[in-house]
Formats: sequence, C-alpha cells, structure tokens
Amino acid sequence: MKLATYEYDGRRSIGAIVSDRVVDMSASVGGYRRSLRGIIENDEYDALRTAVEVTDSPGIALTDITLLPPITNPDKIICVGLNYESHRKETGRPEVEHPTLFTRFANTQVGHESPIWLPRDSVQLDYEGELAVIIGKAGRYIRESQAMEYIAGYSCYNDGSVRDWQRHTSQFTPGKNFPHTGGFGPWMVTSDEIPDPTHLTLTTRLNGQVLQQAGTDMLIFTIPVLISYISTFTPLAPGDVIVTGTPGGVGFKRDPQIFMKPGDRVEVDITGIGVLANPIELDPTTAEG
Amino acid sequence: MKLATYEYDGRRSIGAIVSDRVVDMSASVGGYRRSLRGIIENDEYDALRTAVEVTDSPGIALTDITLLPPITNPDKIICVGLNYESHRKETGRPEVEHPTLFTRFANTQVGHESPIWLPRDSVQLDYEGELAVIIGKAGRYIRESQAMEYIAGYSCYNDGSVRDWQRHTSQFTPGKNFPHTGGFGPWMVTSDEIPDPTHLTLTTRLNGQVLQQAGTDMLIFTIPVLISYISTFTPLAPGDVIVTGTPGGVGFKRDPQIFMKPGDRVEVDITGIGVLANPIELDPTTAEG
Repeated sequence: MKLATYEYDGRRSIGAIVSDRVVDMSASVGGYRRSLRGIIENDEYDALRTAVEVTDSPGIALTDITLLPPITNPDKIICVGLNYESHRKETGRPEVEHPTLFTRFANTQVGHESPIWLPRDSVQLDYEGELAVIIGKAGRYIRESQAMEYIAGYSCYNDGSVRDWQRHTSQFTPGKNFPHTGGFGPWMVTSDEIPDPTHLTLTTRLNGQVLQQAGTDMLIFTIPVLISYISTFTPLAPGDVIVTGTPGGVGFKRDPQIFMKPGDRVEVDITGIGVLANPIELDPTTAEG
Repeated sequence: MKLATYEYDGRRSIGAIVSDRVVDMSASVGGYRRSLRGIIENDEYDALRTAVEVTDSPGIALTDITLLPPITNPDKIICVGLNYESHRKETGRPEVEHPTLFTRFANTQVGHESPIWLPRDSVQLDYEGELAVIIGKAGRYIRESQAMEYIAGYSCYNDGSVRDWQRHTSQFTPGKNFPHTGGFGPWMVTSDEIPDPTHLTLTTRLNGQVLQQAGTDMLIFTIPVLISYISTFTPLAPGDVIVTGTPGGVGFKRDPQIFMKPGDRVEVDITGIGVLANPIELDPTTAEG
C-alpha cells in the first residue's frame, strides 16, 4: 500500500495511491487533518487496507493534488552520513566503526514537486539521494534481529546539503538544516510491500542526467544495525524518519563540481517506491519576525 | 520575572517564582496545560506581570512542586560547542570562524531536581554547565544589532554528554541525545531582568566541588552573533532554545578524569538566574515497544 499526505481543495488529507490517482481515506481514519504519523501510532493500516479494497471512489488525479512530505511532523529526523563506501571514499573521510549521525528539523522538509530552496547565502546546494525508513512503533534497545518489525514503510529522500555551511565547523548541522532543502516523498510504501529493502536501486538525476546510482545492498551500516544503534541512545517513536545515507556521485566531489541552481529539476528514484522530483528555486524568504 | 513550568497535584501549570514560592498563573493565561512556549508565542508577559503584582495568593512552597524544563516542547534546541577558549583548548580542537552547532531532542531534557540518567551503555557521563537563551519571537536573517530583541529570557542548562558515544564518529549527535541527560531550569528569567547577559558568572559543582567557573563575557561567539548566524540557516521560533556552550573544566579532560555516577549531585549556578540541581541515577529504561 502506498500512503500519501496531500492537500486538495484547501484541505489536508491522507490517501492511498492507486496507479496515478489518490483515493481519499479521511473518512476511514476519522476525518481530515489526521497525520500519517498519527495513523501509524494507532496502527490503523488494516482498516485503511480494507477501506481501499472496498472503495468505489474514482480518486483524484495526482496532477490535481499537492503532495506533502509523507510524515509532515516527525518527532525526530535522523540522517546517516557516509553510509556507502563510494561516498565515504569520495569525501576522503576515514572508516568508522559506528554510523555517522546528524539531524534535520521538520521545517527543512518539502514534498514531491514542491521547490527545494537554494539559500540566499550560498551557491553550494548539493543533492543526496537516499532511502528513508519510517518507524512504525516505539522502541528502545531494539535488537538487530527484531529491527525490521519496527518499520512502517519506506520513501525517497533528497538530503539537500549546503556544502559551505556544512563545512563551517566539524558539525554538519547548519548545512543540513536550511528550510526547504529536504525532499521527502512522493509517498510512503508500507513495509509489507518491500519485505527486503536491500534489493532496491537508488538513482539520482539532475535535469535528466544520472548522477548517483547504487543498490541499497551497498549500505555500510544496514537498516537493522542503524535501528539498533540509534535506539540505544534515543527512544524511537512512530513516524520517526531515518535517512539512510547517500552513495557516491554527489556534486561537490565532482570535477568540475556540480551544484543545483534555480530552474534545475532533481529526482530521486528508488525501485519499488517511486520518483521524488523537486524543482529548485531561490529561497523567497526575506527577514521575518 | 521568573517563570516556571511545574507540576502540582497532578496538574501542569505555569507559575511566577516569588522568593521560595511559586504563584500559580494558570488563571491568567486561560487555564491549565498552557505551555510557556505558547505564552511566549502570544506575548502574554504583560498580563502575567500585572497578575503577579495584584495577586494575593500565598503561592506554593517550591519544595512541594516538581519543576519541569521551562520549555518542555521547544521546536528546536541548538547547542553550541567549543564556545569558551578554556574549553576549546582543553579539547585540542582548532579555532574556527563559525559557531560549532549540534542539536538535542526535546526528550533529552529534565527539569530541576529531576534525575539525569547515566546510560546503561556508558560510564562516561560528563557535565557541561551552560547559559541557555530562550527565543521570544520568530525571526530569520536577524541582524546582530537587533538580536537582543529576540530573546524571551535565560535559564541554566546542563548539556550532559556521553563522551564515548559523542566520539564514535565526527558528529556529536549520539553522545548529546541520550534521554534525561539535559538539565534545564530551574526557571526562565525574563530578559528585562538581565539586560546584559555578558556579566553573569557560571559555576558548575559536582557534589559541592566547583569544577567549572567562568564569566559569560568569555563566550567566543556572543549571543547576538549566535542568533544572527543561526537565524541565517533556520527560522527561529518562539520557545527555541540556544545553549551557548561550556567553559573549561569538563570531567573527561581532567587528570584523572571525572565522570558522573549514580548518587552524585550536579549543580549549574548562574548569577541572576538561579541554581539548577540534578541527582544522577542509572537509566531505568529497559527495552520498550
């Protein structure tokens, strides 16, 4: 099942994707304004699945709705750096025995087809295509052998990175937290449809050109290892997002370097999930307060 | 004015601290369960101040209530590393031109007199006494010259750090995000009472012994510089917390090293604000889910 968070006619809804249409599921989950995080928390999948099977709604064309990040309000977004050998090598960073983790704020996220913003204070906006894991139930000290049971589903992520700000100091925080730099979507595919997430192919395209491509079997720290390690230091909650890392081919390690600029279009394509596409625009924000 | 978030008789309230008592202000802000973050967002200080002046409530003894973190649910907690020269030198890290920033999750915070937890997977729990700045209004691209206008108030923070996990990789995230490791309180002192936060003295004591002491005039990156820099990459929101860094004297750089263990008592004392005290206990959490 593919579950989307979207806006249509001024209302936020949860829907199931059926080919190129979305079937509104609000009535099955108690009305509008429900979040997918809340649905995961309450384990309402079975009710949704039944509702999708029996509905006679024709649905709405995807071209008529605005997709939002599948989880608009995660409690935690934990990103993994340097988790493909091809990317670790191109950055020149040493091998480490543990996952390299940083965080994003929820306000950095944008959905499919919403613009990713080039900050006004940088020209070094880079793409990072990644597989996102969405946590399905609360857990602490989760064993690797049980970790897959804690996954609600998967999505595509573009961990848009502002390279100069990322490298101001040892800590990545500023370069990973400009608003509207984290593409997330187009929807969540529930874990029952992807029993083995190590056999997916991840491709990142900029203006149609393939710039990253790798199998998810190449993760240095596997999804169970990540879930086990992370849940040792923080309690995982339903709707938490783990962004599992990007393969080699990022723009700032190319010769010549490639950065994203207004008018560009970036896509993260993962087999079995879908294509997350975002146009690039200049951050329209001026001082606010 | 000193504003506290607390629990009494099973209810969460907002109160004003008057000497060693708290005067419940719930009635002045529309009832129980209001958050200080919400009060800041709505700029309800003047109403509170008037209510405190005219109240004839005797208040409740501080010893009878449970203080919570002043902001229990901040949208963002941004911590500054290496912001006193004495601490930068003891860590052996290079000088940098920008603030070193990392983040904490809200679930890492505990209030005054609540236990800070020693994780089950480490014995390297260290103290870091710090001055916390609480943001009063939304802002992006805030100029240094206007930054002080964006401050709601100040508090004490103990940025409890799990040193081995902090040093697993280049990124500090795991070592700074174990639950119940961030002491925050005892209350927020509104900014009108501290017109110049560069003249405070910060002292950290472990079991009564002074282990850190510095003037806040020693910050490498001043509060206006921090607010301006941070608001360039992320929109600041009311209730956001900026934890401004710790001076030299941390436990893991001492010879012999000092780490906190169950039964210890740690205090962060800042002149003009108060004393944040926390006992140390072993994390009682076992696997959950």
